[in-house]
Order: sequence, then structure tokens, then C-alpha cells
Amino acid sequence: MIKVILHGSNGKMGCVVEALVREEPMMQVVAGVDRTGEMLSDFPVFASMAECDIEGDVVIDFSNAQAVDGLLEVCRERKLPVVLCTTGLSQEQLERAEQAAKEIAVLRSANMSLGINLLQKLLKEAASVLAPAGFDMEIVEKHHKKKLDAPSGTALALADSMKASLSGEYTYVYDRSTVRKERGEGEIGIVAVRGGTIVGEHDAIFAGCDEVLTFSHTAYSKSVFGKGAVEAAKFLAGKPAGRYDMSDVIQF
Amino acid sequence: MIKVILHGSNGKMGCVVEALVREEPMMQVVAGVDRTGEMLSDFPVFASMAECDIEGDVVIDFSNAQAVDGLLEVCRERKLPVVLCTTGLSQEQLERAEQAAKEIAVLRSANMSLGINLLQKLLKEAASVLAPAGFDMEIVEKHHKKKLDAPSGTALALADSMKASLSGEYTYVYDRSTVRKERGEGEIGIVAVRGGTIVGEHDAIFAGCDEVLTFSHTAYSKSVFGKGAVEAAKFLAGKPAGRYDMSDVIQF
Amino acid sequence: MIKVILHGSNGKMGCVVEALVREEPMMQVVAGVDRTGEMLSDFPVFASMAECDIEGDVVIDFSNAQAVDGLLEVCRERKLPVVLCTTGLSQEQLERAEQAAKEIAVLRSANMSLGINLLQKLLKEAASVLAPAGFDMEIVEKHHKKKLDAPSGTALALADSMKASLSGEYTYVYDRSTVRKERGEGEIGIVAVRGGTIVGEHDAIFAGCDEVLTFSHTAYSKSVFGKGAVEAAKFLAGKPAGRYDMSDVIQF
Amino acid sequence: MIKVILHGSNGKMGCVVEALVREEPMMQVVAGVDRTGEMLSDFPVFASMAECDIEGDVVIDFSNAQAVDGLLEVCRERKLPVVLCTTGLSQEQLERAEQAAKEIAVLRSANMSLGINLLQKLLKEAASVLAPAGFDMEIVEKHHKKKLDAPSGTALALADSMKASLSGEYTYVYDRSTVRKERGEGEIGIVAVRGGTIVGEHDAIFAGCDEVLTFSHTAYSKSVFGKGAVEAAKFLAGKPAGRYDMSDVIQF
Repeated sequence: MIKVILHGSNGKMGCVVEALVREEPMMQVVAGVDRTGEMLSDFPVFASMAECDIEGDVVIDFSNAQAVDGLLEVCRERKLPVVLCTTGLSQEQLERAEQAAKEIAVLRSANMSLGINLLQKLLKEAASVLAPAGFDMEIVEKHHKKKLDAPSGTALALADSMKASLSGEYTYVYDRSTVRKERGEGEIGIVAVRGGTIVGEHDAIFAGCDEVLTFSHTAYSKSVFGKGAVEAAKFLAGKPAGRYDMSDVIQF
Repeated sequence: MIKVILHGSNGKMGCVVEALVREEPMMQVVAGVDRTGEMLSDFPVFASMAECDIEGDVVIDFSNAQAVDGLLEVCRERKLPVVLCTTGLSQEQLERAEQAAKEIAVLRSANMSLGINLLQKLLKEAASVLAPAGFDMEIVEKHHKKKLDAPSGTALALADSMKASLSGEYTYVYDRSTVRKERGEGEIGIVAVRGGTIVGEHDAIFAGCDEVLTFSHTAYSKSVFGKGAVEAAKFLAGKPAGRYDMSDVIQF
Repeated sequence: MIKVILHGSNGKMGCVVEALVREEPMMQVVAGVDRTGEMLSDFPVFASMAECDIEGDVVIDFSNAQAVDGLLEVCRERKLPVVLCTTGLSQEQLERAEQAAKEIAVLRSANMSLGINLLQKLLKEAASVLAPAGFDMEIVEKHHKKKLDAPSGTALALADSMKASLSGEYTYVYDRSTVRKERGEGEIGIVAVRGGTIVGEHDAIFAGCDEVLTFSHTAYSKSVFGKGAVEAAKFLAGKPAGRYDMSDVIQF
Repeated sequence: MIKVILHGSNGKMGCVVEALVREEPMMQVVAGVDRTGEMLSDFPVFASMAECDIEGDVVIDFSNAQAVDGLLEVCRERKLPVVLCTTGLSQEQLERAEQAAKEIAVLRSANMSLGINLLQKLLKEAASVLAPAGFDMEIVEKHHKKKLDAPSGTALALADSMKASLSGEYTYVYDRSTVRKERGEGEIGIVAVRGGTIVGEHDAIFAGCDEVLTFSHTAYSKSVFGKGAVEAAKFLAGKPAGRYDMSDVIQF
């Protein structure tokens, strides 16, 4: 039985993870940490990680940037592996996470969805075959109307995967309306659609001569990120110190 | 039997139209016009419209901008209806076509495909229901890597149709990577993908609350433009003077 | 201000509708009816419609088949318009609803989503243009793995719309693996995909010569059905006796 | 410079391959074989392979089943590698090809498109990650209205790839309209859409919990099969005896 400490247990994603762990026969949430300290379920909830006196095998963190420093501190002391899902960490915090990874197992990824991380692996392989055969690479992503940034971090990560195995120089092109010319060879076009409540869709396109391959990922709710975190926690429990990401969880 | 004079008969699109007319039981190409004057098939080919002495019911024109002036002149003299499919006409030529339409039937459209013209009608109706209900409108178009302009003229025509029935102000947005903010209410995002030999794909998207409608058109070859011209010629033969477009051909 | 009585207020869809009405400035839930009689929000909840002594302008019903008989009885007595969203009604109950429609306004549809009902209208128009031009019509629908029936009722309703304006005979074909022959002219193929938690996707396809039009609808959650019910209630309040459906709500 | 002998040079696919080889700087068609014996281009054409007295490095074959026996005979005598693209071979002919592969290099694949063969590799990997994580696998294929068989051989090959790396039992399901029950765990649904002139589209779908991955391949013309044959010929020239397929051509 893998004992999970849920950091950020009372937030939206915390509740999602709790429900997902409940469906895993070999996993259990033994404690939550939330600044409210409010117990909402059948496990105790502490106001901070330092106050939590229950033993666990792994921490799943969906909290906020401010809470992450304290979390890393305690995990190092207690040699606790941690799945770090909080986004918007500062450069300093990312470095502190790297430091922690010398003493404990730390797993962090730009996108926690199993599907997106698998896609990154496959796109790297696909590009290594299709780009030399003359296929052009483009990405279309779609998100809800409230999203502030464009293109999405995930779209950029997918483009990075596409060019990772290639020797040529590639530039990302976000707008073709301002010039009147043919597509350049080393371009990867990345365009963004915004509307309604779309959770997240990504199409990675390889367009060749009379042949197009499209790799699409659709998320229907934020629970896909929780699902990835649970798989990551299963993987990370018991692992030695080191910096891991979702591609380690996916083993062909 | 509708007798067709094919203006630009020996060009790529001329050959496409010839083959399509051959499949129509009630239609026949009686003469071709091509600057080469070369007869390639079972009908005579003249070097110019003025030299053509064979009677027809309608002209289908897929030639080039220079040839269009002479064509319009002759059609007016002979009271010949004309389906004008040549693109890249100058402002002056467009006005001359309008003038001609006072004496003969002239049909011209930004895109001759039956599907695109139907889509324009349907998008106008869809927008009148969905925009007031809070749906956001966006367009994605895909074309081959040699296309010079972005977005395509067809994408702009589809966006024009979407906003045609709406009272609000709408602006077209081609790039969201330069700002960090939520989607504005009166925006219609139009993005372009370029790659390989893609003939032409257009997605018109209505994204609402947990619900998305997408209207897609895919062209697999340029023959779809010829097909539309043939349908237009069927419609135009025998019609009184006037300016027509493909929406007249499509009658619900 | 339109005063709504929510029949089935404490169920899943009842809660969805309550939240949606809260966002409407000119609408308000004034009472709920639920067999538990439990008050969960800021309006009183009664154990049955008969016990509800609060005046309303319209009833939205997402309850269960057993509760519908009592509901119709009371609505007739009080001359209350009713949006009937409960599914699985018996033939007798449907007849009773028709009877009630002689005295009060009754609105019922196979699918309450605004998008699907709009699509039905547009498909009818599209088919009337494209089928005579030789386009073949097919439908692909996708739903979650627990769905018992295939194809979905909505897919059949879309096919019915496609053929509604056509004079030819059409048959629905669900499987082509058992024969070895070309597609027949009067066929509408309807196929079903099942997997994961897909809420509901429908593609209506018109495939012609080198040209394909696809009309797609994607539902991301069941709240789209609630949204349709709210729009329907707005429309129905104050209407005279009669049988209405969602196509009356959508006015071009 | 790789010298190609084109077997079936005057057929539709022969012409496609000729044009594609012309774009390859390090390849050249040195002779054609066609029962007409008619020379259409700048290389000699022989009525049979036996009569062809020009030396080559590799044969590309797009002829017909009857011509294949003579071809294999001559290739064995002359130790000529052969890319066998003719379809509809009898069981005996397939065995004869296997026999020939003991003495010469023979390459044959169900589908010669580069994209489809890459997809088969990637689907095998994707299934090995996603199936154990609870994703359901389904395939949708679309072809023109004249196609006789359903589902396509390519769809079946993709399904074979999906289950190749999995230990569980899987059955292919072509129709769900005749039963009223939930999707079974070991099912792979494969459905076929037929209409217009669609060249060939294949969607391989992995549907999980709130997350769907779709791998799509679209062919816009038959030239994609020629393109694959050219890549295969490049690979096969100079290779030792053995049975190869397109997956050997694609090396990650």
C-alpha cells in the first residue's frame, strides 16, 4: 500500500486527486495539508507540511508557489519523494527544486497529463522519420476564452519535442498574416484558437506530399492532470534521489 | 442541351471543366478559346473570343486577367451569359464586369466551390443563433506551403458571413502571441496553417459553454472549383441580365 | 423577471439548471420540487408538485418518469407552461403530454442542447443542396464506454433531419463489414465509436467529388442540456397552449 | 546513382513513380516494362521483364498479379532486389515471393505509404502505455463510395499494430447496433465510412478518462503509395537477400 500525503488537499485539484486515489486498490491518502487545516474527508488535514506528523511514502503537491518552499524543506529532512505539480514557480524556486533532487526524488513536468507526455515521446520519433522525408510541421492549440497566454506552454513543449531529434535549425512562427511569402523550410507554425470553455486541445500536424499525419490530444476536464500525478506518485514511491519527469513514468 | 463555350479551354482548369461537362447528360462543350488556338479534343479551339463563330448558351471562363476584357466585350455584343472564374482581376476590370451585368447575365464568386458557398449561407444562420447565446467564433484554415497570402480569401469570406447577420462590432484577430490577456468579446480569431500540398481546409468554430460546433470544408483537388462553375453555367444559361453569384445557384 | 419552478431540483441536472439560472439577470428559481423535500439552497423545496404553493411562470423538469404524471396534472390545473426534459417516458406518458398540450404550453425535444437542435435545422438545408449534387451522407458518433445503445438517439435524429427535405428513399446502414459491394445511392451510413468517458460527439458528413463537408458537435459536459432547458424556459413563459420543441426556440 | 527498372511503367502508378523518381537527385529510371511495350518517356520500355536487357540496381513493381510470376523469376536469375507493390497476389504467389527472398532482397507491405507504416510503429508503442492505463482503442476509416471491402486492409493492419504489444485477448467489433450493452474491455471497434471520392482516412483513437488521443492519417492522392515505393527502392538497392517491409525503411 502506497501512503500518499496530499499537499493542497482542499483545493480543486486536491479534491480531484483524492477521488482518483480512492479508486486505486494499492494507494491511500493518509494525510492532507491545507492552509485552512480543515478536515473534509476521512484523513487528517494539517495547516502546513511542518505540522504533519503522519508518515507517508510520497507527496503529491497541487498547492501554490508560496507553499512550495516549505514543502521542499520538509521533504528533504524526511527523505520524502515529491510529485511537484504546482505551476508558476519562480526561477529561484525551480533551482531550489533541482537542489532538493540531489537528496530526494523530485518529479516535475510542464504538463502532467499521461497523454501529452506520451505524445512528446512519439512526436520526437515521428519527426525523425518525417522531417527528413520533407514533411512540414505545424501545431494548432485550442483553449477557453479566459486563458491569458498564447500559444500554450504545452504547445511549445510539443514543438520542442518535434525538433529535439533534428539537426536543422527551427524557428517558431506565430503569425503569417503580416508577410506575403511562401512557408520557409525551417519553420514550425504554432497557432492558438480561443473560445468558450475548451479545456485544452492540441494538434501536431505533419504535412507532406498528398499525405498528412495529425496527432491530437483532447482534455475533457482538469482531472487528466490529477490522473497523471497519481501515476507519477506510484512510480516515484521508493525511488532514489534524482530529478524525474513524466517521460520516466512512461516506459515503452 | 446547354451549349458551353469554354474560355481558357487548354489550361489546367479548362481541362478539368471539359471533363466535368462530359459527365453531364444535358450539357456539351461546343467550342474552346485559348491563345494557343490548339485543338486538343473533339471541339474547335479559337485563339480569341472574337474569332469564335460558334453559337453557345453560356461561357465558362478560367483564363487570365488580360483575356477577360476582350471576353466581356464579345459577350455583351452577342448577349452571352458568362461565368467569370478568373481571379486576380483589377478594380477597373471588376467595374467593367459590373457594367456588363447591366446588359448580360454575369456570375462571379470569391470561391466557386459549391461547398464553401453553401457554408457561407449556413454560417450566417448559425451565427445569428449562437453568437447571442454567448458562443465565440474562430476560424482555422490550412493550405499548401507555397501559398503566399494568409489568411486565405476564403477564410475572410467565411468570417464575413459569420458576422453578416450580427449587430455587434467584430474585429479579426490574426495573432494572440503578442499580448497576455483574455479573449475579447467582439473578436473573431482567424489562424493559418501551412504545409505540404494541402489543397484547402477551412474550419469555422463556434465555442460555447461545454459545447463546440465546427463546420469543416476540405477540398481534395482543384476540380471542386470546376464543379461549381459547371453548376453555375447550368443555372445561368437563359437568365436575364444581372449580377449573380454562387449563392443564387444554391437555393434552399 | 421570469419565475422558475425547478422540478427535480436536487438531482444532478437540477443543480446544473439552478447554477445556470443564477447567471440569468431576468430569471429566478422561486421553488424546487424533490421527493427528498430537502432545502439545499435559497429557495423552498417541496416533496411534490401538488404541495408547492409558490407561483411561477414556467416549470423546468429534470426528474424521473414516475414523477412526470403528477407534474402534468398540476401544470394543467394551474395553467403552468412546462419544459419537459425527463427522458425514458412511456408511450402512454407521451400521449398524456400531448393531451396536456391542448390546455398548456409543453416543450419537449429528443436532445435539449442548443447546438444539436441548430444542427438539425442546418443539416436539413445542407442536404437539400448537396444530395441533389451527388454528395453522400454519413454520420459518425462517439460516446463513453457505458452507453448501452448504438447508434445514439441523437445520431438517428440528425439522419432524420438530413433526409427530411429529400424526395428519394433512404435507408440507414449500420455495418458494411458483412457485404462486399459498392456503397448504394440511397444509403446513410451511421457508425458508433465507444470509449472512455466521451460525453457525446456527432459528425454529419457530406462527401462529394473531391470535396467533403463535415458538421461536428462536441459536448464537454451534461450542462449543455441544462443550458438548452433554460433557453427553452425563457421562450415558453407566457406562451399559449401547444406542443413546442427546441426548433421553435431557435429562430433564424 | 541508383538505377531503377520500373515494372508496370505505363500504368497509372507507374507514371506516378516515374515523376517522383525524376525529383530524386540520386535516382534514375533506366528502363520500363509494360505489356504494351510502348515508349512514353526518355527511357526504353520492354514488353516483358525477360526482354529487358538494361542493368538496374532495383525494380519497383506496380503491375498486376499475372505479371508478377515472370518478374520474380527474372529477378532471382539476375540477383535484382525488388519492391513488390502489386496487390491482390494469390497465396501461392505470396509463397513464391517468400521463396525468392531466400536469394534476393524482396520488400512488400500491405500499405506502401510512409505515413501509415510510421503510424503502425507508433501505435504499437502508444498502446503499450495507454491500454494498461485503461484507455479504450477504436478505429474509424473513411474511403470513396466505390470501395468494395470494409473495413479497409489498412484499418485492420493498424488494429493489429495496436494489439501487437499487449498480452490481453482482443476482438475486433464492426457493429454495435445489434446489441444493447456496455462496451467490453477486450474490444477494438473498427468502423467504416463510405462516400464521394475520399482517397483514404484513418483515425486510431485512444479514449481514456477525460482524455482522448487520436492519430490520424489522410491520403490526398494515390501518389503517397508511389512515394513510399521510391523510399523503399532507395533502401533496398544493394541489400542482401531477405524479406523486408516498410518498417525496415523507417528507422528511428
